[in-house]
Amino acid sequence: MRTIRSLDVEDARILIAGAREKAEEIGVPMCIAITDEAGNLLAFERMTGGKVTSITIAIDKSYTASGAKKATHEYGAASQPGAPAYGIASAIGGRLMVVGGGLPVMDGGDVVGGIGVSSGTPAQDMEVAQAGIDRLMSRA
Amino acid sequence: MRTIRSLDVEDARILIAGAREKAEEIGVPMCIAITDEAGNLLAFERMTGGKVTSITIAIDKSYTASGAKKATHEYGAASQPGAPAYGIASAIGGRLMVVGGGLPVMDGGDVVGGIGVSSGTPAQDMEVAQAGIDRLMSRA
Amino acid sequence: MRTIRSLDVEDARILIAGAREKAEEIGVPMCIAITDEAGNLLAFERMTGGKVTSITIAIDKSYTASGAKKATHEYGAASQPGAPAYGIASAIGGRLMVVGGGLPVMDGGDVVGGIGVSSGTPAQDMEVAQAGIDRLMSRA
Amino acid sequence: MRTIRSLDVEDARILIAGAREKAEEIGVPMCIAITDEAGNLLAFERMTGGKVTSITIAIDKSYTASGAKKATHEYGAASQPGAPAYGIASAIGGRLMVVGGGLPVMDGGDVVGGIGVSSGTPAQDMEVAQAGIDRLMSRA
Repeated sequence: MRTIRSLDVEDARILIAGAREKAEEIGVPMCIAITDEAGNLLAFERMTGGKVTSITIAIDKSYTASGAKKATHEYGAASQPGAPAYGIASAIGGRLMVVGGGLPVMDGGDVVGGIGVSSGTPAQDMEVAQAGIDRLMSRA
Repeated sequence: MRTIRSLDVEDARILIAGAREKAEEIGVPMCIAITDEAGNLLAFERMTGGKVTSITIAIDKSYTASGAKKATHEYGAASQPGAPAYGIASAIGGRLMVVGGGLPVMDGGDVVGGIGVSSGTPAQDMEVAQAGIDRLMSRA
Repeated sequence: MRTIRSLDVEDARILIAGAREKAEEIGVPMCIAITDEAGNLLAFERMTGGKVTSITIAIDKSYTASGAKKATHEYGAASQPGAPAYGIASAIGGRLMVVGGGLPVMDGGDVVGGIGVSSGTPAQDMEVAQAGIDRLMSRA
Repeated sequence: MRTIRSLDVEDARILIAGAREKAEEIGVPMCIAITDEAGNLLAFERMTGGKVTSITIAIDKSYTASGAKKATHEYGAASQPGAPAYGIASAIGGRLMVVGGGLPVMDGGDVVGGIGVSSGTPAQDMEVAQAGIDRLMSRA
């Protein structure tokens, strides 16, 4: 038997609030998804103007970040042509996201969940995801 | 050209808050999903204790209710063996939900979105979904 | 943040060993799957003679039992024509199993995972799954 | 009519044991999957700390190696931009894995199954998969 620490829905709301505020600040409406330690969806919001195609992308970025315990943009670098993880982007029916915007949420050295953001550029998505984590960390 | 009226994310939060309060009142933690007029996910929350299997079920109940402009339990009656819609339950890769807990959200005679609830009995899911709608209507 | 207790791979091996021994005793080679608290696969074995079609069925029975915190045969009763959960069998792309052979694994009142068995009759599958749980409980 | 030689579940356990020991030695907890000659899952284990996203990836690496009778990293080379198999990575709904960590298991010149490993770097996954094969060969 093992004991696992994971985000709950209260944490998820704080993550979304922090991300949303940054998205408003930079003027890019986003889809924002939060998954628990196991990669299962905890909470989601699509801001007015967030893209329909970004619903699944945000959820899958968050799934990838929490399930693989790695930021999605790290996979982006590792999966370039010629790099060792080339081709990983289509794994798990395409759920394995290698585009920036998915970040693991850490607590005391453990991955406890993930946040996935989509609708802007990958750099904007990453900035907004990080703002969600910063908000949660400031509350901890 | 046409103009479409639809729920937005602010409405979605009110729907979720009303549903969550009822779920807490009856002591059944739920997955709660809100979709817009087009059936696309607007917002989602899984309360602590909400079932992992209910994530997709709640989203698909809401998708069915807004997309088909019909409560999912109405499909339940219409899809019994021998009834005209028998077999519809497995349509759209299984996304067409015929179990109670998905309700269309109406505004002035138009369907403007849906709410889907899952983790309890179908009767509990329907009660919690209705509480979400009641909350939104009381704000209108 | 929340703390979750879950089966680990050592527990999974004990569950499989207990189930396999019962399957050998009744002379029905089985597919046996173990999932963690979140419904994710921990371990799997297909005995010689276990059915190819039962691979996914065993995994999905275990997923359903741990994710929905309910034995799959309970869904079987609740999803008969005319019953409240009629139609649930095709949910989650057909992963929601309502055929007997999936059991939640409990520990101190909490669901900590699931076991799913397939290749025999539902009654045989249930008996073999229960034998896995009995083995784990006798070690606790 | 033809006769097929294939791994059985006893072989699968030896393959997993050899792989697991190497994974422990290098300190990288892994998902380890074994498929038979036909590409169907025989056995699977997720070590504590093995990634959730790697469940499907390990199974699909093994499926690819036994089904295509080729190591997955060979596809990695052949599917680079400009190479003949470019684009194959998304085939079969993304199940065709081109990332290292899937190896065919040979016996007397025939492919009799596959092993797929995931959670580390592709080089680590390959090393662990090879250790499983080495263990089986040493028993033959």
